[in-house]
Amino acid sequence: MNIIERMIAHKANKESVKVGEEVSVKVDLAIAHDVTGPLAIDQFLKIGVNQVFDKNKVVFVIDHNIPCSSEASRVQHRTIQEFKENFGVKVYGRSEGVIHQVIMEEKLYKKGDIVVGADSHTCTAGAHGAIAIPLGSTEIAAVMALGELDMEVPETYLINIEGELQPGVYGKDIILYVIGKFGTNGFTDKAVIFGGETITSLPYEEKMTISNMMIEMGAMIGYIDQGDEEIGKVKETYHIKAQDLKPVAACPSSPGNVKPIAEIQGRKIVQGVIGSCTNGRFSDMKIAAEILKGRKVAEGVNLIVVPASKNILEKMEEEGLTKIFRDAGAVVTNPGCGPCFGAHQGLLSKGDVAISTTNRNFPGRMGHKEAEVYLASPRTVAESAVQGCITHPGTVVSLEG
Amino acid sequence: MNIIERMIAHKANKESVKVGEEVSVKVDLAIAHDVTGPLAIDQFLKIGVNQVFDKNKVVFVIDHNIPCSSEASRVQHRTIQEFKENFGVKVYGRSEGVIHQVIMEEKLYKKGDIVVGADSHTCTAGAHGAIAIPLGSTEIAAVMALGELDMEVPETYLINIEGELQPGVYGKDIILYVIGKFGTNGFTDKAVIFGGETITSLPYEEKMTISNMMIEMGAMIGYIDQGDEEIGKVKETYHIKAQDLKPVAACPSSPGNVKPIAEIQGRKIVQGVIGSCTNGRFSDMKIAAEILKGRKVAEGVNLIVVPASKNILEKMEEEGLTKIFRDAGAVVTNPGCGPCFGAHQGLLSKGDVAISTTNRNFPGRMGHKEAEVYLASPRTVAESAVQGCITHPGTVVSLEG
Repeated sequence: MNIIERMIAHKANKESVKVGEEVSVKVDLAIAHDVTGPLAIDQFLKIGVNQVFDKNKVVFVIDHNIPCSSEASRVQHRTIQEFKENFGVKVYGRSEGVIHQVIMEEKLYKKGDIVVGADSHTCTAGAHGAIAIPLGSTEIAAVMALGELDMEVPETYLINIEGELQPGVYGKDIILYVIGKFGTNGFTDKAVIFGGETITSLPYEEKMTISNMMIEMGAMIGYIDQGDEEIGKVKETYHIKAQDLKPVAACPSSPGNVKPIAEIQGRKIVQGVIGSCTNGRFSDMKIAAEILKGRKVAEGVNLIVVPASKNILEKMEEEGLTKIFRDAGAVVTNPGCGPCFGAHQGLLSKGDVAISTTNRNFPGRMGHKEAEVYLASPRTVAESAVQGCITHPGTVVSLEG
Repeated sequence: MNIIERMIAHKANKESVKVGEEVSVKVDLAIAHDVTGPLAIDQFLKIGVNQVFDKNKVVFVIDHNIPCSSEASRVQHRTIQEFKENFGVKVYGRSEGVIHQVIMEEKLYKKGDIVVGADSHTCTAGAHGAIAIPLGSTEIAAVMALGELDMEVPETYLINIEGELQPGVYGKDIILYVIGKFGTNGFTDKAVIFGGETITSLPYEEKMTISNMMIEMGAMIGYIDQGDEEIGKVKETYHIKAQDLKPVAACPSSPGNVKPIAEIQGRKIVQGVIGSCTNGRFSDMKIAAEILKGRKVAEGVNLIVVPASKNILEKMEEEGLTKIFRDAGAVVTNPGCGPCFGAHQGLLSKGDVAISTTNRNFPGRMGHKEAEVYLASPRTVAESAVQGCITHPGTVVSLEG
C-alpha cells in the first residue's frame, strides 16, 4: 500500500485496502460554511437523529458572507446559530477567517486524519497530511450523524518536483502550471500527491496554496508529502524540474487555461485581489506589501486585500502591513472569503478585467459572467496592481532584492 | 438678519435677505456618493455643458458600497471613475470613508461656505459652520454645471441647551431627544441652530452627531452655533436643560419614536452596529472600546464596527482599538457606510432586532422590512452588545469611572 492507502486502511480499521475497494472510514472532522452549512443542516434534520456524532468534530465556519451581505445570508447565519444552540456543535461566526485556514490554525486536525468538508477546497488540509475530501451537503449531513464516510479507495498519482525554483515563482505558479498541464479533469476522483524536495522544502503556506487548488484538476484527495515516511507504490509518477517553472496565470475562464505571464503581460486590469484560502496568508501579504510599500495602486484599479484569518490580520496590523496597503490605496477587508466567490466585497461588472490570487475564474465567479479573471501569485497581483496591467514579477521590484 | 441669513446674503452677494425671499447663492462645494453620484452624472450629461463649474469643488466619495457589493454597484463606481477621467472632478474611491467625514477631514469647506450634497446627511457640515443643504440628483447636476443654487431663505429656529450633561448622555442622546420632542417633520424646510453652552462646549465629534441627524426632523439647514458671533433674531427659541436629558433610543421604526433606555432595556438583540457618519468617529470608537476591552460580545449577537474614515481606522489600529474590538468578538469593517443603509456588511432578516449608532431606522433600512432597529449612542450600543439586550449605560461599566 502507498501512503494514502495506508491512511485509509487505518481509518477503515483494516489490515489493507486496494484501489477500487469500497470502505467505510471513521471521520475525524466534518466542516461546512455559511453557504453549504444550512443545506447540510436541513438534510441532517431530515435524518431525524437527535445528536451529531461528536460535538467537537462538527464545525461550522461563517466565512462566505461576513458581515452578511444580504437578508438571505443572514438567514443562513441564523440557521447555523440555531443549530449550535440545539446540537452543541462548534461555530466560528465572528470573522475568524476562511474555513480552511481556521481549522488549520485551530489545530482541529492532524496528519492522517480524515477531514470531510462541504466545500470544494477542503483539500487544503492535505498540506498538513490529512486525507481531506470535499463532499456535497447531503453526504456531509450523513457524516454529521454517523461519523463515518463510505468511499472507494482511489488510484494515487505522484507529482514529483525537484530542483530550485526561480525567483518570482511561487507555490501558486507550481499548482497553476500542473493544472494547466493535466487539465481541470486530469485527476478526477484520484488521489494526487505532490512530492519531491522542491515541495517538501516549501514553507507551509505555499504547501497550502498547492493543496488548496488540487481540486481544480478534479482530485478527490490532494496530499502534500510530509517527508516523514515512504510514499510507496503509486499508479504513475510525473517528474517536473523546478527550474523550468515560470510565473504563470490561469487565464479566463478556467483554472486550466494557464499561460506564462510573459505571454499575457500588458493586459489592462481594473481590479486586483490578494487573499482567500489559496493565498491570503501572512507570507502572501508580506510579499505583496514589499511591492506596495511606498507605491500607489494604479489609477482606475481597485486592489482588495482579504486576510485569510483574524490571526493573519492581527499580525498584518502589528507589522504595519495594513497601513502599507491602505497607504498604497488598497482596501483591506475583514477576514473571510471576500469577493472570491462573487457574493460581495468587490464584484465585477461586464467587461471588467481582474487579477486575483484566488482559486477559480469560471464565468461569473467574481460577478458578471462577461468579466474576466486571471489567477496568479500575490507577487504578480501586487506588481500588476501598481502597473495597472498584468505585469511580470520583477518589473516593479527587482527579483534579486 | 440672523447668522443664517447673513451667510446666505453674503453668498447671494446681497446687502440683506429676508425669510421667504428667492435668492441665488454661490456654491462652494457640491458632493455626491456612489449611489446618488451616477444619477447626478446622468442628469449633468443631459444638460450638455462641457465642464463642471470648478473641478476642485465637485467631489465624489465612494462610500455606500465599498468594496462594491453587487455588479450594479460596480457599474456605479465605473460611472464615477469615467466622469473623473472626462471632467477632472475629485473622486475619493479607495475606502477613504463616509462622504461627510471625508470632506471634513480633507478641509474641503469652511465656516460660512455653501455645501450642497446629493445625500440627506449633508447637514453634517453644519457642525463646522457651513450652510449645508441636501439636494436631489437633478438639482446637484445643475449645481455641478453652474456653481449656483436657487433657494428660498428659510425661517430659523434655535434649540438652546444649557447646563451640564449627565454621565452616559452624549450628543446622540441630545439629538434623538430633540427629534423625539419635535417629530420627524418638526422643522421641515426650516433652518435649525443648536446653541447654548452645552452645545458650544461639546467636542466637534459630538457636534457632528447632532448636525448629522438634523435632517431627521426635516431641517433644510442644520447648524451648530460656532460661538464666535451673534446668532441674531430667530423665529423661535426652545430652551432645554442639559441635566434633564437621559440616555435614549429611537425605537422602531422612526428616528422620532424616541424613548428613554430605562423604558426599553432588556429587549433582546442579535446585532449591534457602531459606526456611520453619525457615530463612527474616533471618540465614538474609544467610548465603545472602553466598554468592550477584556469583555465579550454576547453569544448570538453580531457586533459590527465601521470606522467613518481611513484616518479614524489608522488611529484605531495605532491605539489598539481594532484589536480590542476583535478580541471581544466584533467584526471591524473597512471604512464606509457599512450596513447603515442596508446594502451589505451586516443585513438583518425578518424578526431580527438590532441596536445601532446610525441615523435611520425606517422599515427595511438595514435589511428586511420586518427587522427592528433601535438607534442609540455608541456607549449604549457597546453595553447592549455585551449584555445581549438593550442596556442602560453604566450597567457594564460604572458611569463614574
